[in-house]
Amino acid sequence: MVRAVGSANVLTDPDLTASYECDFSGRYRGHAAIVVRPADTSQVAAVIAACGRHHAPVVPQGGNTGLVGAGVPRDGEVVVSTTRLDQIGEVDSARGQVTVGAGATLAALQAAASRVGEDAGLDFASRESCTIGGVVACDAGGARALRYGTARARVAGLEAVLADGSVISRLAGLPKDNAGYDLVSLLIGSEGTLGIITRVRWKVVPQLRARVAALIPLHTAAEAGALLSALRAHAPSLESCEFFLDDGLQLVLDHQRRRSPVARRAPLYVLAECAARSDPTDELADALQRAGVEDALIADDSAGRERLWALREGITEAIKAAGIPHKLDVGVPLAQLDGFLARVPGAVAASGGGRAILFGHLGDGNVHVNVLGPEPDDTRVDDAVLDLALRCGGTISAEHGVGVMKARWLERALGAPELAAMRAIKHALDPHNLLNPGAVLTA
Amino acid sequence: MVRAVGSANVLTDPDLTASYECDFSGRYRGHAAIVVRPADTSQVAAVIAACGRHHAPVVPQGGNTGLVGAGVPRDGEVVVSTTRLDQIGEVDSARGQVTVGAGATLAALQAAASRVGEDAGLDFASRESCTIGGVVACDAGGARALRYGTARARVAGLEAVLADGSVISRLAGLPKDNAGYDLVSLLIGSEGTLGIITRVRWKVVPQLRARVAALIPLHTAAEAGALLSALRAHAPSLESCEFFLDDGLQLVLDHQRRRSPVARRAPLYVLAECAARSDPTDELADALQRAGVEDALIADDSAGRERLWALREGITEAIKAAGIPHKLDVGVPLAQLDGFLARVPGAVAASGGGRAILFGHLGDGNVHVNVLGPEPDDTRVDDAVLDLALRCGGTISAEHGVGVMKARWLERALGAPELAAMRAIKHALDPHNLLNPGAVLTA
Repeated sequence: MVRAVGSANVLTDPDLTASYECDFSGRYRGHAAIVVRPADTSQVAAVIAACGRHHAPVVPQGGNTGLVGAGVPRDGEVVVSTTRLDQIGEVDSARGQVTVGAGATLAALQAAASRVGEDAGLDFASRESCTIGGVVACDAGGARALRYGTARARVAGLEAVLADGSVISRLAGLPKDNAGYDLVSLLIGSEGTLGIITRVRWKVVPQLRARVAALIPLHTAAEAGALLSALRAHAPSLESCEFFLDDGLQLVLDHQRRRSPVARRAPLYVLAECAARSDPTDELADALQRAGVEDALIADDSAGRERLWALREGITEAIKAAGIPHKLDVGVPLAQLDGFLARVPGAVAASGGGRAILFGHLGDGNVHVNVLGPEPDDTRVDDAVLDLALRCGGTISAEHGVGVMKARWLERALGAPELAAMRAIKHALDPHNLLNPGAVLTA
Repeated sequence: MVRAVGSANVLTDPDLTASYECDFSGRYRGHAAIVVRPADTSQVAAVIAACGRHHAPVVPQGGNTGLVGAGVPRDGEVVVSTTRLDQIGEVDSARGQVTVGAGATLAALQAAASRVGEDAGLDFASRESCTIGGVVACDAGGARALRYGTARARVAGLEAVLADGSVISRLAGLPKDNAGYDLVSLLIGSEGTLGIITRVRWKVVPQLRARVAALIPLHTAAEAGALLSALRAHAPSLESCEFFLDDGLQLVLDHQRRRSPVARRAPLYVLAECAARSDPTDELADALQRAGVEDALIADDSAGRERLWALREGITEAIKAAGIPHKLDVGVPLAQLDGFLARVPGAVAASGGGRAILFGHLGDGNVHVNVLGPEPDDTRVDDAVLDLALRCGGTISAEHGVGVMKARWLERALGAPELAAMRAIKHALDPHNLLNPGAVLTA
């Protein structure tokens, strides 16, 4: 291992490995045999080959911002950190693509794209820490998936090291290429269990500088759904459509020591942002009027928009400051959103109780259920919320992935045939269960 | 088998099976043991289970418009025709989705979308015959992939029968759903070798009625590349950007008994179409002016646009009327397109000779090399063209798939690690090689 990456990049001192052994939320923690920090693809391949020879299971880790326990060791695995693979190539504006190392942060990619008038087309609050390899490995989503899709939609190709140490590479970024099975798509969202992503060919989108945001207080999720339909129909510049509830707003206001920007408090708030080549303010105002919205806070300068977004993006930090949350990321069909939101408090209460804070991406039917109170290893509330999402026709994971948190839920969520197919694929590509064992699929 | 689908839907009479045993181009033909026509997913599952019990290999077939021999029998397989699975559900405009049976034609889906002001977001010349199951199974592309992506980008989910007769179903169409490996993506483009697609959850796009097309005569592919860049930069309404050469134009004019609409003939023609909510003619004219185009034929009414498109879409029929072509679909990086086009005639001449007609989708670097002259089973010209595409950094299949035509080329195109991973996946999901043996992967 030392031969592969140099002794300075094999960490064994507990003081140095500690930060790799606990997740962002504080809920998942374990012990790493060692932490290895390869610098490039060939070093990753050498590390994986060495781990294979020694039957030493591997946990790949990017920015360690994952929320389902997939990126931290459980029981003495080798942590392979990708943060040194942080090169970002030249943005090819003619083709709208750039090759990005797995360890580059989303913020670094955003900055590189912005310098040449392009946009990464993906954004969320952990942008300064999360890495592109992890973003792709868990098919991260965020607030702008409504317009641009999840990370999957941004991937024109990738390079990865498989369990046998071999390297597959599809970095040409051809717009059409259907030669053989789409291993690229299979690796996206596989959470490091089928291969370790080392580089990504990323599709940028044109940068849209003219932006306007609106915060709209509403009474029900049904009203929010109707508003979303109106925005979709009449504001093609719609880029994000988020929601949070009043107790979440209060938590953020208390944490940020701010006064409420909305005079008239309401049960639910929608935060919508439009972006276009030319000022979309009139388009947004017209769509709001057609939706019957009378009361909205409009921000058409970047400082004002940032103040509104801080209310939505600040929820995660405010929750973290209040305790170790159970972070449950689910998705439901929009028609079921009202019922789902109404039933969460009852489900939480019936499973041992706790304080549930609900927010998320309205446009995707993606709800983040954060529950404060239960002990980290008490999974009753997790089960109750995931069960409710499935009974609403939804998914147990919208954008966080399965990780170790939801692995035992996968068969119930997908059915036996789909799980059997996934197990067969895992066994075919990683017969010795070397890569991220216990994540996605139970052992 | 008769019990599964009824005797009327098990065809054995050679008069009835003949049309299932030969492909559209006439190059690929074989013998089917029987042709089975199930009516729904459970019948497909019963048929596959029965074939499994009798070790009878299966060739799935949709509209039989495939061009790489993947949909016609080779040597006594059971042909499973999906054309009776032709139901199209209600288009959900709020979510922009519709559930489509695998046997519905692309034209039928386009019509269903159009009736509610939506658009299928995919189009090509075989629209009246090709089926959605086949379109997805080979990740078809076409002229509008430049704007909307290939078939893959239109799929929000699907249902399929696996080799063991089990059914997997992801038809909820959740915008974000990353629970487990993306089997949907893996099945897209697998050409019936990993499962038989029975239903597809399809993403429609807003119908754009304001359209304008332009035919631009040019001297070189380099000029065409520069024009494409200008159109991309200045005409966001750009939807298609096609090209063909002068001998292709002459072939179509002769076949259609038409006079040339372009007064001044040139070596190469670009056909561009813009579509928007409001008339994009000024935007297109401005972009053409910025690109330095002085001579363009503009069509802003549908009759005029159809006349221009008939020149491009008529090439396939005109070639078919002239003989049995070798149809080679490749993709190259745009920067290599000029060199590729220049070197094809020499490569064809050196491999036994023939008449090469070149056309395709400029925006995707996707070239259709059609060669008339060589016998159907003489593969020297195929090898020469595929080799040239790879040496230009391209792909052996942009949008037609691998089929039986290119299976033996896959290792050279992708490398041993990627091919080994594909073989492992195939073996994991179809251990007895029941589904479309010999397509994509050589036996």
